[in-house]
Amino acid sequence: MNTAIAHPNIALVKYWGKRDAALNLPAVPSLSLTLSGWHTRTQVQWGAERDELILDDEPRTDPKVFRVLDLLAQHAAIPRPPCRVVSHNDFPTGAGLASSASGFAALVVAGAGAAGLELSRGELSMLARRGSGSACRSLYGGFVQWHLGTAPDGTDSVAEPVAPPEHWDVRMVVAVVSEGPKSTGSTEGMERSRKSSPLWSTWLELGPPLVEQARQAVMARDLEALGTVMERSTYSMYSTMFTATPPLLYWQPATVALLHEVAALRARGVGAWATMDAGPQVKVLCLPGDVQTIQSALAPHALRTLAHGPGPGAYLEP
Amino acid sequence: MNTAIAHPNIALVKYWGKRDAALNLPAVPSLSLTLSGWHTRTQVQWGAERDELILDDEPRTDPKVFRVLDLLAQHAAIPRPPCRVVSHNDFPTGAGLASSASGFAALVVAGAGAAGLELSRGELSMLARRGSGSACRSLYGGFVQWHLGTAPDGTDSVAEPVAPPEHWDVRMVVAVVSEGPKSTGSTEGMERSRKSSPLWSTWLELGPPLVEQARQAVMARDLEALGTVMERSTYSMYSTMFTATPPLLYWQPATVALLHEVAALRARGVGAWATMDAGPQVKVLCLPGDVQTIQSALAPHALRTLAHGPGPGAYLEP
Repeated sequence: MNTAIAHPNIALVKYWGKRDAALNLPAVPSLSLTLSGWHTRTQVQWGAERDELILDDEPRTDPKVFRVLDLLAQHAAIPRPPCRVVSHNDFPTGAGLASSASGFAALVVAGAGAAGLELSRGELSMLARRGSGSACRSLYGGFVQWHLGTAPDGTDSVAEPVAPPEHWDVRMVVAVVSEGPKSTGSTEGMERSRKSSPLWSTWLELGPPLVEQARQAVMARDLEALGTVMERSTYSMYSTMFTATPPLLYWQPATVALLHEVAALRARGVGAWATMDAGPQVKVLCLPGDVQTIQSALAPHALRTLAHGPGPGAYLEP
Repeated sequence: MNTAIAHPNIALVKYWGKRDAALNLPAVPSLSLTLSGWHTRTQVQWGAERDELILDDEPRTDPKVFRVLDLLAQHAAIPRPPCRVVSHNDFPTGAGLASSASGFAALVVAGAGAAGLELSRGELSMLARRGSGSACRSLYGGFVQWHLGTAPDGTDSVAEPVAPPEHWDVRMVVAVVSEGPKSTGSTEGMERSRKSSPLWSTWLELGPPLVEQARQAVMARDLEALGTVMERSTYSMYSTMFTATPPLLYWQPATVALLHEVAALRARGVGAWATMDAGPQVKVLCLPGDVQTIQSALAPHALRTLAHGPGPGAYLEP
């Protein structure tokens, strides 16, 4: 039991900014949807010649991976031997498609399995967060809230399921514009926004009510309400990026072409709402019956599009 | 003396939002550069068979034009006869290139000349404002500040020269992306931002310090400081557009391509800063020596580019 599967998640109410960079504690609460269509598959060999990471078939250096395994061992009060980690994403890595979320979620589940530890979902979620903040949400399926919390040690800044995948059969159509790595890493981008955007304090105030509105929309299965909140959160986050010095330009020309398509779809009465993350990709929230119409409209501007349903939380491969 | 020339002006610190829609009083102060390269030429015939407007060689209906001539007559306490107005722009009209600013500035100067009135620059500026807010700035050349004011009747919300054209020989390279009319008119866009953007109150707070910083940068001839403030003001304005419900998308794909070019120029050490208005065009502030480099970089993404210097205020053709 040393191989785990985890799915990326897309924030409907955005995580952008840290109140504690070492602990990866967020400056705002967030709410996400775990996606069904893509996954990270990670195998951990607990006891190897040396620490070794193979990501997408290539040797890589990423100290955070082994730091998280250190924390896992510390948490269980066991020594950590050198580990070999082999991980594979069936979607682009580091391109604003949440590969770090699925990656660290799969890592902690596989690591705990490999070490023979029985950890709770909450413990695994908290350990995944130390690798990448948003990874704490990929431990759960469906709709997930990441609480802001107030404790300095982060014990109350936990992810929690809002509703399981079967609660509401929505779709997230992901239009991939670029498969290359993002221009500025998320952590660096967040810091630039925090330090230089004149809208930062407003962004911090907006977070909690947006999450609450989104949670209510999920519970009521109200797509228009959820889509509206999602767009407001998305553009509020972008506002802290654009107004940073120098401005953070994660968009590409095709990003804007896709946003115009989504606006045109809505003008035609199609329920489609857009979100983006730290990257040029556009993700469109909709109902299953509109997927084909939306994919047809987006396809001319994207390398490819994929419609995801609500996916499951991270799990060990039997 | 019934024909006037006026130049468009581009806000370096943006005007977006009205605190009084009837009087065109602004919600924020602004600071602009009057451009040398384009102009509106307007002839007013004071006494005609009927009110008639010919704009760019075509008959048009625009009640605001005759309303402003009414206000001009009222201000001088004379009756207004029917007027024939013939106006021509040598650049695209209604496309986010400030044609309404130069248009109403030329109108009041030509109208006063045609009626034989001797009005002060301040009086003309205030009358032009009633047609289009930003027109009050095109009465003056070079760098111009439009004060926020506090009086309900707008008597202290006046435009005032900060520095004449010869103070500082900057350039504004305008990259035209689209010559069509903007998707949503400015007045409607401002209202949508004001009513629905969660960032509106922050935008109102940011205006006064940004204008003061820009004024100091102009006085010190500090291009980096001015460019940085201009970008911050621009993206803060866009933040109220993007976060409106539904989002205001004035950009086109080429807008983003141009923004990436400006970022790449800056990364290469070229002093180039971008601004945009309610439309897809990109305007780049720089010094004369960098114009050619910048035009070469922007050209592949634009229909055309034109470098403007600081232009004069509106004047009667001798």
